[in-house]
Amino acid sequence: MPNAPVLLKSIRSHYLGGAEVVAGGLPMQQQKVVGNASPRLIDMNGGYSAGQLYVQEYRLAEPRRPYPVLLWHGGGMTGAQWESTPDGRDGWLWRLLQAGYDVFVSDAPERGRASWAMYPQVYDSAPIFRSKEEAWRLFRIGPAAGYAPAGEPRRAYPGQQFPVDAFDTFTKQFVPRWLTHGGMALDAYRDLLDLAGPCILVGHSQGGGFATQLAQEYAATVRAVVAVEPTGTPAQASCQLPPQLLVWGDHFDGDDTWQRYRSQTDAYWNALRAAGQPADVLDLPAAGIAGNSHFCMLDRNSDHIAGLIVDWLDRSLD
Amino acid sequence: MPNAPVLLKSIRSHYLGGAEVVAGGLPMQQQKVVGNASPRLIDMNGGYSAGQLYVQEYRLAEPRRPYPVLLWHGGGMTGAQWESTPDGRDGWLWRLLQAGYDVFVSDAPERGRASWAMYPQVYDSAPIFRSKEEAWRLFRIGPAAGYAPAGEPRRAYPGQQFPVDAFDTFTKQFVPRWLTHGGMALDAYRDLLDLAGPCILVGHSQGGGFATQLAQEYAATVRAVVAVEPTGTPAQASCQLPPQLLVWGDHFDGDDTWQRYRSQTDAYWNALRAAGQPADVLDLPAAGIAGNSHFCMLDRNSDHIAGLIVDWLDRSLD
Repeated sequence: MPNAPVLLKSIRSHYLGGAEVVAGGLPMQQQKVVGNASPRLIDMNGGYSAGQLYVQEYRLAEPRRPYPVLLWHGGGMTGAQWESTPDGRDGWLWRLLQAGYDVFVSDAPERGRASWAMYPQVYDSAPIFRSKEEAWRLFRIGPAAGYAPAGEPRRAYPGQQFPVDAFDTFTKQFVPRWLTHGGMALDAYRDLLDLAGPCILVGHSQGGGFATQLAQEYAATVRAVVAVEPTGTPAQASCQLPPQLLVWGDHFDGDDTWQRYRSQTDAYWNALRAAGQPADVLDLPAAGIAGNSHFCMLDRNSDHIAGLIVDWLDRSLD
Repeated sequence: MPNAPVLLKSIRSHYLGGAEVVAGGLPMQQQKVVGNASPRLIDMNGGYSAGQLYVQEYRLAEPRRPYPVLLWHGGGMTGAQWESTPDGRDGWLWRLLQAGYDVFVSDAPERGRASWAMYPQVYDSAPIFRSKEEAWRLFRIGPAAGYAPAGEPRRAYPGQQFPVDAFDTFTKQFVPRWLTHGGMALDAYRDLLDLAGPCILVGHSQGGGFATQLAQEYAATVRAVVAVEPTGTPAQASCQLPPQLLVWGDHFDGDDTWQRYRSQTDAYWNALRAAGQPADVLDLPAAGIAGNSHFCMLDRNSDHIAGLIVDWLDRSLD
């Protein structure tokens, strides 16, 4: 399975959603744009597209199921988090293709290839950036005191599954994000669901929260949801929902931020279960799988967890 | 050929190059990050990675040649320009895979999934943004006076091959760029050449200029160069170079900026030919193919031109 080739029918990408905006009042600049040419006038006043989403569509020649899997990244990340692990192993994109699923990999608005718009002329505020220190702590790689700059010894949590030696490589894929653009992202994901039709959502962190929110709005379209350590889940269900799987990693002890985030998500899942909704939980440590970080799709046992998710899809889909 | 499936051995991505930088002196913020959680402290002071390049590596199960094709995008663009056309047709990525080539699609530093760093703390200046008006004129879609906002009638050049109805969709893939980062981009492309080993470079616009520059430095590694409307080419050759093909579209008349850019590139190509270097030219209008924009890989005859380039590679490679 790890080395099985994949026969693809097409690889395409799309830009969805967004709207034309106009920026004005910007000064003219004379700038050297091309190294061997003289400076030219740069006039940035004019029309732009803002708010669009970017998605790559991988279609198999012979998919095992009629539904594609839509991979939704976390906050401050891009679709690259599904392609490869920082230590150079195959990512869940490839594993899902091998398992017979068509796959869509998206960059939400303002992230990666979806691009971002100038501020304060179009976006009304500045973005926030995730430092290595914050990532080390918030992604539960190790305690805050265990972080050190590149090249110096670091202290991760004991039994850490994240490939700690590749942490600096991992941080190269962080992108800035805006904290007030949740509505913009949801709008673009709606366009993606309209394009994809019946589908499976696999969302991580912020993307897992978006997936649980839109599963309610698109309950007839979304056939299953896998929410990997989601944040920002709904408070309650508004309708009959498709099968949903919640996945938690390890190292929550002593992390106040994650205790709070997790309690909100667990409360939603408990409410789903109390209401008889098909809501499963894969608590990895409780299942005997210890040491996962916030990014189990990048951890050293990522193939194992991909297999568990594919098995759950096989059991849960019609 | 257009609908032939492709058997892939792997799809991976990599982050190459870049360096750890430290940002300090930034104010603490209390911000709501997750919709259903209370605000948390955001401390952006710390370490970041800056200057890295992102690349996707598509490997065929049975490539026809041992050399991959490296697709290098133009200024203010990302690797998405090679994946699909704005009107939804297959891009050159897919056509080259069908033709039997492994393909690498990269985002240069600061573009797309390669991410960008905060300014003025890390990058020393602000980026520039490309308006729809500038793209309409500079990409030679139509005369400046022919531009109009989305939804209003526009006037393109007669016989325009660019899919004009998809112009607004096309503009969704524009990304900001910094004018002082040429050295940073070249450094990262060197890392890419070190990773790829013997290869073929297909570069567009700014990426074509980078390809012609690095073909001199990596003359033993680069086996062929296809420079599609390159800008910023070298002044002269420093060594024996691999076969190179220069591709020009149409609608240069009356465009002063492009007349200047083109004269620099043509001078380099003429010097190459005078020195007996293998430097070919595919002037599309002179070859009876009229109406191409600056983006022939997105124009309605993109498949035709891909075929001409594959034919040239077949004739030019050992």
